[in-house]
Parts: sequence; C-alpha cells; structure tokens
Amino acid sequence: MSLNKADLRFDTAEEKSRFRHTASHILAQAVKRLYPNVKLAIGPSIAEGFYYDFDTETPFTAESLAAIEAEMKKIVAEDYPIERFELPPDEAKALIESQNEPYKLELFAEHADKGEPISFYRQGEFTDLCAGPHLTSTGAVKAFKLLSSTGAYWRGSEKNKMLTRIYGTAFPKKSLLDEHLAKLEEAKRRDHNKLGRELEMFTTVDIIGQGLPILLPRGARVVQLLQRFVEDEEQKRGYLLTKTPFFAKSDLYKISGHWDHYRDGMFIMGDEAKDEEVFALRPMTCPFQFMAYLNQARSYRDLPLRYAETSTLFRNEASGEMHGLIRVRQFTISEGHLAVTPAQLETEFKDCLDLAMFMLRTLGLDGDVSYRFSKWDQNNREKYIGEPLQWEKTQDLMRDILNSIGLVYEEADGEAAFYGPKLDIQIKNVHGKEDTLITIQIDFQLAERFGMLYTDTDGVKKHPIVIHRTSIGCYERTLALLIEKYAGAFPLWLAPEQVRILPIADRHNDYCKGVLDELVNAGIRATMDTRSEKIGFKIRDAQINKVPYMLVIGDKEESEVTLAVRSRRLGDLGSMFLDDFKAKVLLETAEKLKD
Amino acid sequence: MSLNKADLRFDTAEEKSRFRHTASHILAQAVKRLYPNVKLAIGPSIAEGFYYDFDTETPFTAESLAAIEAEMKKIVAEDYPIERFELPPDEAKALIESQNEPYKLELFAEHADKGEPISFYRQGEFTDLCAGPHLTSTGAVKAFKLLSSTGAYWRGSEKNKMLTRIYGTAFPKKSLLDEHLAKLEEAKRRDHNKLGRELEMFTTVDIIGQGLPILLPRGARVVQLLQRFVEDEEQKRGYLLTKTPFFAKSDLYKISGHWDHYRDGMFIMGDEAKDEEVFALRPMTCPFQFMAYLNQARSYRDLPLRYAETSTLFRNEASGEMHGLIRVRQFTISEGHLAVTPAQLETEFKDCLDLAMFMLRTLGLDGDVSYRFSKWDQNNREKYIGEPLQWEKTQDLMRDILNSIGLVYEEADGEAAFYGPKLDIQIKNVHGKEDTLITIQIDFQLAERFGMLYTDTDGVKKHPIVIHRTSIGCYERTLALLIEKYAGAFPLWLAPEQVRILPIADRHNDYCKGVLDELVNAGIRATMDTRSEKIGFKIRDAQINKVPYMLVIGDKEESEVTLAVRSRRLGDLGSMFLDDFKAKVLLETAEKLKD
Repeated sequence: MSLNKADLRFDTAEEKSRFRHTASHILAQAVKRLYPNVKLAIGPSIAEGFYYDFDTETPFTAESLAAIEAEMKKIVAEDYPIERFELPPDEAKALIESQNEPYKLELFAEHADKGEPISFYRQGEFTDLCAGPHLTSTGAVKAFKLLSSTGAYWRGSEKNKMLTRIYGTAFPKKSLLDEHLAKLEEAKRRDHNKLGRELEMFTTVDIIGQGLPILLPRGARVVQLLQRFVEDEEQKRGYLLTKTPFFAKSDLYKISGHWDHYRDGMFIMGDEAKDEEVFALRPMTCPFQFMAYLNQARSYRDLPLRYAETSTLFRNEASGEMHGLIRVRQFTISEGHLAVTPAQLETEFKDCLDLAMFMLRTLGLDGDVSYRFSKWDQNNREKYIGEPLQWEKTQDLMRDILNSIGLVYEEADGEAAFYGPKLDIQIKNVHGKEDTLITIQIDFQLAERFGMLYTDTDGVKKHPIVIHRTSIGCYERTLALLIEKYAGAFPLWLAPEQVRILPIADRHNDYCKGVLDELVNAGIRATMDTRSEKIGFKIRDAQINKVPYMLVIGDKEESEVTLAVRSRRLGDLGSMFLDDFKAKVLLETAEKLKD
Repeated sequence: MSLNKADLRFDTAEEKSRFRHTASHILAQAVKRLYPNVKLAIGPSIAEGFYYDFDTETPFTAESLAAIEAEMKKIVAEDYPIERFELPPDEAKALIESQNEPYKLELFAEHADKGEPISFYRQGEFTDLCAGPHLTSTGAVKAFKLLSSTGAYWRGSEKNKMLTRIYGTAFPKKSLLDEHLAKLEEAKRRDHNKLGRELEMFTTVDIIGQGLPILLPRGARVVQLLQRFVEDEEQKRGYLLTKTPFFAKSDLYKISGHWDHYRDGMFIMGDEAKDEEVFALRPMTCPFQFMAYLNQARSYRDLPLRYAETSTLFRNEASGEMHGLIRVRQFTISEGHLAVTPAQLETEFKDCLDLAMFMLRTLGLDGDVSYRFSKWDQNNREKYIGEPLQWEKTQDLMRDILNSIGLVYEEADGEAAFYGPKLDIQIKNVHGKEDTLITIQIDFQLAERFGMLYTDTDGVKKHPIVIHRTSIGCYERTLALLIEKYAGAFPLWLAPEQVRILPIADRHNDYCKGVLDELVNAGIRATMDTRSEKIGFKIRDAQINKVPYMLVIGDKEESEVTLAVRSRRLGDLGSMFLDDFKAKVLLETAEKLKD
C-alpha cells in the first residue's frame, strides 16, 4: 500500500511521539514472533526514541537484538495497516486473557472499573492493549535502531519483578537516524564519566565507596583554578569568606529544621539511645554560616552582609543513584548567604543572579541553561516550615523580581527548599539529562529560628531576610559539564596542563629544562616529555591529552635560542622567543579565552 | 639565721626544681595553718613553678589565695630550717596516721613493701612525707606568687576524687618574679584562644560542638592566603594536587591498618551489626592518595611521584581535650605523599625538609622550632605493623639522613606512626606548651599493603618507599601560632585587611570609594570605615584591628588627589599618589616581609 502522508510528519512532539510509539509496537510484534513466551509490559515513546519492557527468562544479547531488528525490518516491509478498535470491558478482558499477557491484564484492571470501552491497536497478527495514537501503517517506520537493553522494574518499583527493557529510536528517513546516531556517538565520546576517566581527571574505587570520586591531579587542578576564580570574584564583589566545620551536633539541625525535614539525607554519627554525642555531616552550609552572623550584634549599617564559602557538603544518597561526578555523596560548592534588609532584597537578588551569569559566561555555559522558579507544594505542607500566607507573599515577591529582570522561566510546584522558594538555573548534560547547577533562594524564616537580628534605623531589632545562593554550583558537577562541553579540551585558563615541552632528542633535555623552569616560575602550568620516543609520537600524545600548547625543541631551536610553538587547535605557529611565548600564554590566560 | 649560699643557686633545672619544691611545702604548711582539715595530696615542682593538690570541702577563692600568700610570707620570714629524716616503715606509718593524712598514707603504702626507710622533710611544725630534695631553710624563698586554683583528679584519673590544685611560681629575687609575671601577662594577651576571638578570627559555639571552630572572615582569609601560598610553592616544586573524599568504607581502613590501630580515633557512620554500609571520616589522607598512584601502572620513569593535598582530617578526640584552634576534631593540613625509589629516598626526604624550612622561614616561625626523631617502642609491638628488623633498618636509615643534614634532634621512643618512624618539627605555643607542627615520615610498609608497584629498570615490579609529609602542618594550628607570634599584627602579605580607608567626613566618601575600588581591583584587601565618627576614633579602631596601612582622607587629599598614608608600626608616612601607594603595597606583599 502507498504511504499515508500524515505518517511522514515528524515536526511536533506529538508527531514524533506517535511515530516512535508505532516503532515500539513493531518491536513488540517482532519479539513475540521470535520469542512467543515473552510477556509484554509497556512500550511508550520517550524524548528521543522509545522502549518496550518485556518479561523474559533469558536476557537479550547483541545477537538477539540484531535478530529482532531484522524481524522488525520485515514487519515494516510487510507494511501492515494499523487499526484501532474498542471493546467493552468484559470482551477486552477476554481478549487479553486469550493472549496470556498478565501485565496487560494488570493494566486493563486499572481502567476497567470506569466501565468505558477499552481501546486496542492491531497490526497484522499483533494486537496490543493501547491508548494510541499510532501511524496508519507499519511501512512508514523506515529508519530505526535498537540501542540497548537494560533491566527495569515493573512499574518502576524495586518491590516488583525486574523486566528487560529494550531502548530504540526511529525516524522517517535514514539520514535523520544517521545524524541522531552520530550525535549519540559524540555524546558517548564526551561523556564525562568516560572521558574524565580517560583524561585522568578523576576515578572511583570500590573500597572507598560509590559516590565518592577521587579527583586526580588533572581534575583537582581544574577545580583549584575554578575555586580561586570564584573566591576572587566574590571577594571583589564584597563577599566575606568563612570556613565552617563540616559537621555539628544534632542540636544545630534541630533548630534549622534539617533534623525534621532532611534527616534521611544526612550521614549521622553516634547514637542518642546510647547516650552518645550525636553529630551529623552537613548537607547544607546555612546554619553554620549563620553562626558567623551571630558572632556580633549587627546594625542596619552592617547590612548587606554577604558570606561566601567554598563549602563541602554531604548527602546520604542511595548507592544505586551514584553516577560519575554528577550524583555523589560528597561535593564542594561555592555556597553563600546574604543577610539583607527588605529594601536591599531586590538589588541583592539581582546581583546574585548577575554573579551567576558572569560565571556561566566566563565558563562558556551561559547558552546551555534555562530557568526554573521553584515553589512549594501547598498540598504537601508537612514538607515545609512556615505559614501559607508567608509562602505566597515571598513567592509573589520573587516572581516580581524575576519579571522585572525579564527572565524567561518556568514555574515548578513542589521544588522549593523547605524554608523558601528558589530560582534554579538548570543545565542539561551531554545526554540531555537536566540538573540544577545554580540556585538562588529567598528565606524569610531561618533568621527568626536562629535569632539573627539587626538594629534598624528606627532602633527596633528586626530579622534580616536571608538569600541562600551559589555562584557556580558544585565543582564536581561543573567539572563534569566542562569536560563534556569542551570534550576535554579545556580553555587555556582552565587547562590543567597548559604547555608541554617536547625535546626531539635526549640531548635537548637540558635546554628544555631551562625553558620549563622559567615557565613554571611565571606560574604557567608546563610539563616536559622526556621519554625516548619519536617526536611524532610525543606530539600525538600531547594532542590526545588536549594540551593547548606544545613546544617542539630540537637542534635548530637550541642553537637559535627559540621555541617551535604548536597549538592543539591551529597546529604549527612557527618560531618564538621564550619571553614572547610566556607573555602570550599569560595574556591569553588572564583574558580567559574560551579556546 | 643567715641564708645558705647554695639555697640561692637558681641556674640548672635541678636547682630550680629544688627551690620550687620548697615553695610548694611552704604553700602546704600555710594551707594547713589556715585550714587544718584540708588533706594533703602531692606537691611537686613543674616547668616554671610548682603546685600542690589539696582535698578541701570548699574551693579556694581569690581571697583565700591572698590569705594563703600572706601566711606563706610569714613562714619565709620565720625562716625555718628544713630537716630531712628517715623512719623505718612501721614508724613512718604511725607518723602519717597521727597526721591523719589519707592520701599520704596511700603514697606511703606504695613504698612500704620495699622495706627501705622512708624519708620526711620537716620545717617548723610542718612535716611532709617526701623524697626531696629541698633547700636548707624556708627563708630563701623571697619571691613567689600563687597563680591560680583549678580542679585535678587524685592521681590524674577521673575515677578518683576531684581535688583542688593551687599553682604558683617562685624565684630567689623579686626582679626575676616580676619578669616572669610580665611574660605570663604577655602570653595571656597573645593567647590565640583569647586574641583570636577578640580579632574575630574564629569562634566556637555550643550547638555545633567542641573542637569544631568556625573561621570567621578574618581568620578564613588568612587560611586562604596560607593555603594558596603552600599549594603554589608545592606546585613549583613538582607536587601534583589531589582532592580525595573525606570518608570511605571501612574496607579501606582495614587494608591500611587504621581499622585495627586507629579505630577509637575515628568518627564512624553506620552499623555493621545492622548490615549497613559502614563508613569512617578519614583521620589521615594516606590511603586515599594511594588510590591516585594506583590509577595507572607506574614505571621507574614516573618516580618520584609527589602528591599534595589541602586535606581536611577528622579525629574523634574526647570533649574535655578541646582547645581553641589547637585541639580540634576537624582540621585542614597540607598533606602529601611521595612514592620514591630507594635511590631517591635521601634526596626527596631532604627536599621535604627544605620545603618545610622554607615555609617556617617565610612565616617567621623558624627560630621557634626543635626537632624530634620519633621511633617505635619495641616493648609495645602490638601498636605497630611490620617486623622489628624492618623497623630498625628504616630507623637507622632515617638517622643517617638526619645526621648527614647535621640536624640537632632528640630521639623519642614510642612516638612513631604505626607504619614507620618520623621526623617531627616541634613548636611551643605562647604558654610554652609543645606540639608537633610538621612531620616527615618514612614508610616501608603501606605500599606493599596497598599493592603499589613500579616497574624498575631491570623490568622487575617493586614497591616504592612512601614519604608521608606536611609542608606547614595544620592550618588551624598555624593560624593560632601566627596570632600568638605577631600578637595579631599579621605581616602585610597575610593580613586579612591590608588597608583601611578612613574618610574624615561623609563628604569624602565618594572619593574614598574610588580609591577602594582601585585597590580591590588590584587584589589588595582594602576596606572603608564610613561610620560618622571622629577621625581619631577611626584611627584607634584600625590600630586595635592591627590594620597595616590606614589612608586618612580629607579635603586636602581630595583636592590634591592624594592619600595621607599611616602605617600601624611607623605612624604617619606622609602624602602619596594612589599609584605609588598601590605599587608599594603590592611589592611588600610579594616580598612577604615579616612586618
């Protein structure tokens, strides 16, 4: 049959979803042909493809995926019309029972009590309980690919049986599929959890534990540079640095509310029942930094007080959720708290956002972010402290500020901190997964809990408003994003190794050592490759390590007292004097060029 | 009677001890005269004075100490000859029983079983069980002072009764006493635990816990400067920075030996009995940094590998032992580990010492240190890992290195780490209490435990030797020492606030703000005092805060576009242009002048 033109539309999210939903049915049909005993669960379309969950005795191998793909091709070639039909609940039940599909029966049972007719989709010999929509025939699914097979619990709960999920993607044209697969390959190549390990930025080891990455010298150096950059910028903007303890007695968290609202997320030491001192590692810096405020009586003249800290935090996440530098149990963050008067709130909030944007621009990440206004969930009031009226008032205030900036944001219910609403700056990693990188929160509550006061112009003691904020988010996550953004080729100012000196022969080592010392003394991150290898090999190796500049030194350079300079991006830059090269590197570093 | 010349000798430690031991008997005699029911415990001489422990119903007040001092003066004026006599055990016992002194009876009982005669000292009506020695009469103790009264457990054990200890000191001349008291006053004034709080360097709060100081902005800034200084210097010297997790599963510590040899000193999370994951906060960085070494196969060409980390450590010390920034439960240290071949050991060890000495010189602390060669205790072998032969060999090697440097050191048994001997650089605080600031250790054992290997020139895989070392010791302790050393007047390069701008009137604020911005943008730590106070008040305040430079700005400066510069040490430096002042501050900062 000839293709229905509507089947080829692939522009809107709905069109893509319908297309890939059909691909998932083709997958299920192929699986049932090859493995008749496999039971079907669910098979939706997802952001960039589709999946289907199967209950199978033996897992699918690469070979079985290939066989399934081949069978799917046949089904596409056979070009079955796809028909929707409805049955009354009792007939629907009889059909599913005849199919011997227990998971479908469970799904059916959820809808049956409404008494409405139940819809099915049929293509050739395959009929599936399904709400649709679908294409009109299987022939349109010209270009598809099965990508992987993993375990997945039935209905996402670990209490249920582990099923086997096959992921795939589908497009109306092969060229689109190829483009998408190339993008996936590139994402895999840039994946910080792979590339970051290959570049020796970080590692993890079993005997230390999951979610506790070890920053190796190259990764630690990048983080050191980032931290200094952030601390310096904050200090220029009037922030005061603190260094507060990483744990405290439970007493502190009882005042802050963490003990009631965040206890499961904390690592706890000592047992109250045994009459021991009970401590908890800190999940946030707020109550600690408040102690700096409380160290003195404050007046309106002292405000705004802006505290910043390069702060390590600890969160007791489940082992299974750990991932590279992104989901971790210990992380370090540019955290800070501002105590402000109501009159200062708007300006200070905007300045926090300005600082965050400055950071993102400098790192080259500003184009990749979106904004989320995270509010409380009034249907889950026990998750929050404070009164509804206060929440609404604060949220209205925050919305006004966001609107006055002209920020484009989405509102999200139930994403607030337990003490106040927040602006989240969201960023997607190379696989498209979104996380919060930076957050700025308005808190009308904790100052009162902690008895933080200032004497106002009228002589009356008042509680300051507290802004909780980060400048750059957690350093581990930022490192991961930068690895992916630059595919490991860090901008010069952040490169852990800026210059590698490559002597052509051992007799050039002494000259090279002199160059090295001069660069290192100027604060340039330079190294030397003294291995007895061919120069081509050394250059390739430096290129693999993404070193911005290589200095190739042979007889000519030594006799002329020059350097042959090579850029990782531009290749051979010709001959330079050491002083000129040094000045060039220092200037480009100071300018924080993106490449 | 006329004074015995020998009684006036006060040069050697023995002479001082005899003199002050007699002062302690005079104290006890005075107490018994005024409070006949008080029971006597012990009363030795100590480093710079003496004490006597008493069992008394009511504590001694300032008034009672004054009364006791007055009574002691009488006893000195009465100038009793001091006589030693011996009694056989049974007669000695009878005498003590007649005195009704239960603590003395307990002391007597310990010596009685040897059957030897027991010695007593008598002065006037006062007779004390005592081994001596003493002066020949009470008249020599011309200059003395009771300093304080505190609680102290009988025999130092908390299982025993809490007694009352009176501390005092004594000298043969009033001028010496006055000098000593002035020194004590000065020490009290410089005490970091007092001055550091007054200068808002740090604080502690009950709800966080003991031993967990909060570094306030001024203290945090000094530590930030120190850390950058150390990291930069280490990187120039070829160290590789790591950032490793602050805790790990117990598995790691089981390999390192900490689980068996250091468990009581660690904070532990999770319960093995409940089948939970068990973690411990790290008390040392070694096993974590070893993971960086293990991340790759290593060859002799890679060695020496020098890892450094600004590392936070945690030690579960008893609450009662906490003190300011010196005895803490969490501290941060410039820790590092070198993996070296046997041929590299001596050079690398010496370089570690050279680095430590460079740090001490730059901080101005080099004149205040002594060296301790800390060895194992072969009578307590269960405290250590490894074989006696290996210990002796390593210690001999270390002694050879120390001798070849010509270092003056004392040997201390039982002070080694559980895995190897160490060189400790010891420093005394303002009260004369000695602590270890820096340590350099040689470890022949942990590389084997952790399977750390390198392929040697002969192709054979061997374990490297590990040097554990610090560059500067723990930052909290160093901050405390610097506060005391400089009485809070930090050298310019370390001063948290380098320049304070003092507008004479509010109308000068704008001009001052321009100066401030220019200084801050040049990386100078400058602030501005805009309070509506008299200029004399502002100057005094800046002086109290030990700010190195003050800029006094009035009409004259504003119209001439200059600055009136004041040094905290030299006073008025006259008028300067901003560019010249900026250059002066930057140069003096770069030179790290001591003042």
